Amino acid sequence: MEKISRTKIVDLLKRTDFGATVNVKGWVRTRRGSKQVNFIALNDGSTINNVQIVVDLANFDEEMLKLITTGACLSVNGNLAESVGSGQAVEVLATGIEVLGACDNTYPLQKKGHSLEFLREVAHLRPRTNTFGAVFRIRHHMAIAIHQFFHDRGFFYFHTPIITASDCEGAGQMFQVTTMNLYDLKKDENGSIDYDNDFFGKQASLTVSGQLEGELAAMSLGSIYTFGPTFRAENSNTPRHLAEFWMIEPEVAFNEIEDNMQLAEDFIKYCIQWALDNCMDDIKFLNDMFDKELIERLKFVLSNGFVRLPYTEGVKILEEAVANGRKFEFPVYWGADLASEHERYLVEEHFKSPVILTDYPKEIKSFYMKQNEDGKTVRAMDVLFPKIGEIIGGSQREEDYEKLTRRAKEMGVPEKDIWWYLDTRRFGTAPHAGFGLGFERLLLFVTGMSNIRDVIPFPRTPRNADF
Amino acid sequence: MEKISRTKIVDLLKRTDFGATVNVKGWVRTRRGSKQVNFIALNDGSTINNVQIVVDLANFDEEMLKLITTGACLSVNGNLAESVGSGQAVEVLATGIEVLGACDNTYPLQKKGHSLEFLREVAHLRPRTNTFGAVFRIRHHMAIAIHQFFHDRGFFYFHTPIITASDCEGAGQMFQVTTMNLYDLKKDENGSIDYDNDFFGKQASLTVSGQLEGELAAMSLGSIYTFGPTFRAENSNTPRHLAEFWMIEPEVAFNEIEDNMQLAEDFIKYCIQWALDNCMDDIKFLNDMFDKELIERLKFVLSNGFVRLPYTEGVKILEEAVANGRKFEFPVYWGADLASEHERYLVEEHFKSPVILTDYPKEIKSFYMKQNEDGKTVRAMDVLFPKIGEIIGGSQREEDYEKLTRRAKEMGVPEKDIWWYLDTRRFGTAPHAGFGLGFERLLLFVTGMSNIRDVIPFPRTPRNADF
Repeated sequence: MEKISRTKIVDLLKRTDFGATVNVKGWVRTRRGSKQVNFIALNDGSTINNVQIVVDLANFDEEMLKLITTGACLSVNGNLAESVGSGQAVEVLATGIEVLGACDNTYPLQKKGHSLEFLREVAHLRPRTNTFGAVFRIRHHMAIAIHQFFHDRGFFYFHTPIITASDCEGAGQMFQVTTMNLYDLKKDENGSIDYDNDFFGKQASLTVSGQLEGELAAMSLGSIYTFGPTFRAENSNTPRHLAEFWMIEPEVAFNEIEDNMQLAEDFIKYCIQWALDNCMDDIKFLNDMFDKELIERLKFVLSNGFVRLPYTEGVKILEEAVANGRKFEFPVYWGADLASEHERYLVEEHFKSPVILTDYPKEIKSFYMKQNEDGKTVRAMDVLFPKIGEIIGGSQREEDYEKLTRRAKEMGVPEKDIWWYLDTRRFGTAPHAGFGLGFERLLLFVTGMSNIRDVIPFPRTPRNADF
Repeated sequence: MEKISRTKIVDLLKRTDFGATVNVKGWVRTRRGSKQVNFIALNDGSTINNVQIVVDLANFDEEMLKLITTGACLSVNGNLAESVGSGQAVEVLATGIEVLGACDNTYPLQKKGHSLEFLREVAHLRPRTNTFGAVFRIRHHMAIAIHQFFHDRGFFYFHTPIITASDCEGAGQMFQVTTMNLYDLKKDENGSIDYDNDFFGKQASLTVSGQLEGELAAMSLGSIYTFGPTFRAENSNTPRHLAEFWMIEPEVAFNEIEDNMQLAEDFIKYCIQWALDNCMDDIKFLNDMFDKELIERLKFVLSNGFVRLPYTEGVKILEEAVANGRKFEFPVYWGADLASEHERYLVEEHFKSPVILTDYPKEIKSFYMKQNEDGKTVRAMDVLFPKIGEIIGGSQREEDYEKLTRRAKEMGVPEKDIWWYLDTRRFGTAPHAGFGLGFERLLLFVTGMSNIRDVIPFPRTPRNADF
């Protein structure tokens, strides 16, 4: 077959130079037709849209044609033609076909629809489906949007460490990282494991957050963000939890809580706008197949300011709702960590808008959050979203060395573990603030998918580390 | 002090609206002057350049002035003025100064120069130095350049898993990841550790490469790249090795080895061009301080095509050199894995150009590389750079199911561990190719730094996981 330089399908579908000789390569989605003419829907992953290949059977070898089955990989030469029936503006009238890779009938992704549960079991193949092609293209676009947003605003992308010897945030159970031979663990005279034999000479784990190191960077480079994997060894088998997920954590010197709220709102709206501008084919598909209100919900968030509300006011609203007969599974009272049902009540029923809840009781938040003058609350902020609940958590940080060390002590964080963090407050401290966005939470919102296992290529959950 | 909205120093230094009232915030680098007037060099991390603050001492409180020491954090109001003496075009005549954070004389970064070794011990503070500010701003820019390069070319950013239950590449020793209680390890009747009790229900490790999963993605989405942390538990205390580093791995369906070479060359030149276009202030500083040939070397790579040479030819050249009296520490012969000294001879002495070495003996390369028809070599490619040695390693992949499974067997890779990888060859296989770039290797080249610990914020090496 003549060698013609390949055109990606996403580009081919925009061409109007009908009659041109073209080459496309991709995988067969469907094949149908008569005894004379066949129509092959070919997809190469560059777009959710297939290109229709028109095959005049008389011109091709019969044995070769038998290999054109769902899942087979083809290289097709042909002439670009205007299309009436294919659902696209163009099609390719095949002049040459090479089967690069055949695909027999044991292929798990035959034509019929598959459940998302089944597709998780063939996660190595599921990006070949319309659904997961769409999800992973959107995932790409959201990552690019995130980098673009921060780069345009003079933030520096900062890589905080994945392996850490400190667990200061106490954000959950951690995975231990070791090179010790578990069959021959050395112990010291007290019977304690002798980590002197381990790779790092001490006990090490996978990070649960890059925030503390991000603060170090903000206190020198000014505005930074992280975007990397984080880990929680919680035994939670829910549609919202992953053991390995990606997180974005901006941290900004000289920002106070109001700047932080504005940054969070601008940031998330920028991402959603980007998705609508760049991923509409994929979003439309997901809207039609999984979540009929998806596009509406995305546009709604864009067109409304986020409500900003102190926790104390939020609790009052919830208590009033209870007094008026609204039932919740968990009790509501000042000091309680709000449950998802409470957050969703505020967002979906009361305000009908995203809500930024601020100034939480210090007891339910981390030691590093800036203490308010009331002595009871801290300058925390959680961004609550329809359908998702908490999508962002952040705070202004305590910049006062004395207050910070006192609070760390009260909460049992050993000073010897965070001396380096405290140094930023000893040497030229400054107000600063930041937040964390779970990347997969954002993707749940933007794709309309309902299980977090379906927005990351290879989900890690309890008893599952396949592929 | 009056509240005026802050201008970042990188922006302030470009302004020409002299007389304007401005606010800058940042950290004191130096303070000098007379009994009447002081000059403060202030830096906020947005650029390597300081802004000079001119302080008429008579207008300010004496106690406050005492706090303006190296490392202190200030908020300064003042009038923008044209500068003659500061080395910059503008300076700020202070009208108000607030000390946000004092800094006593225990601050480790006093005015005098520090060794890079010492700065590694205070890695939490070193981004405040000119050197590490420059390095980490360049690191940011290189990450952005990488995303931009691939995004512009229709590649999708794909997150391969960090925690993996397979070690197919065998690229080195791995870190084990576990939640088991090491004091109470359960064993089965054969005395083997019962991983059914571990988080994933089986033994798990940190990834050494995302390539195999990246191939899955390429065989569905077409063109993808990864950019994430990878891990090697090798006990190598060298200036070139990290236990935790970031890697970029593009993988492209339908690309053959020649396309792969071109992509690698285009990619690396794009990054270097980006650095010269966007990081010149930082690069100039590093050129002057650490590596007087840095800028010259960067421009040299841009202006020369990379030599493309089969391994067999490379070995001939080296053998001739030996015959002509050139001494190497390690022996050269067909079949040997070339040592750094050999690679550098080809690049720096023989060709005086980057070299892409191809078609290596199959015995020294991985099972997944495409086998050449000679039965002896595979379509591997290593990109060799001056000063750095190997900066990229890649190959065309074996797309033939039979050949791939045979080679995996020969090399002792159990089929049960890679059934999902083999599936891509069973179902619609296609030629494809890809490569891996160690991000920190690229940074060594672009910054001119000579120790890899100095181009990543918090290096992880044997016996070191600080911060």
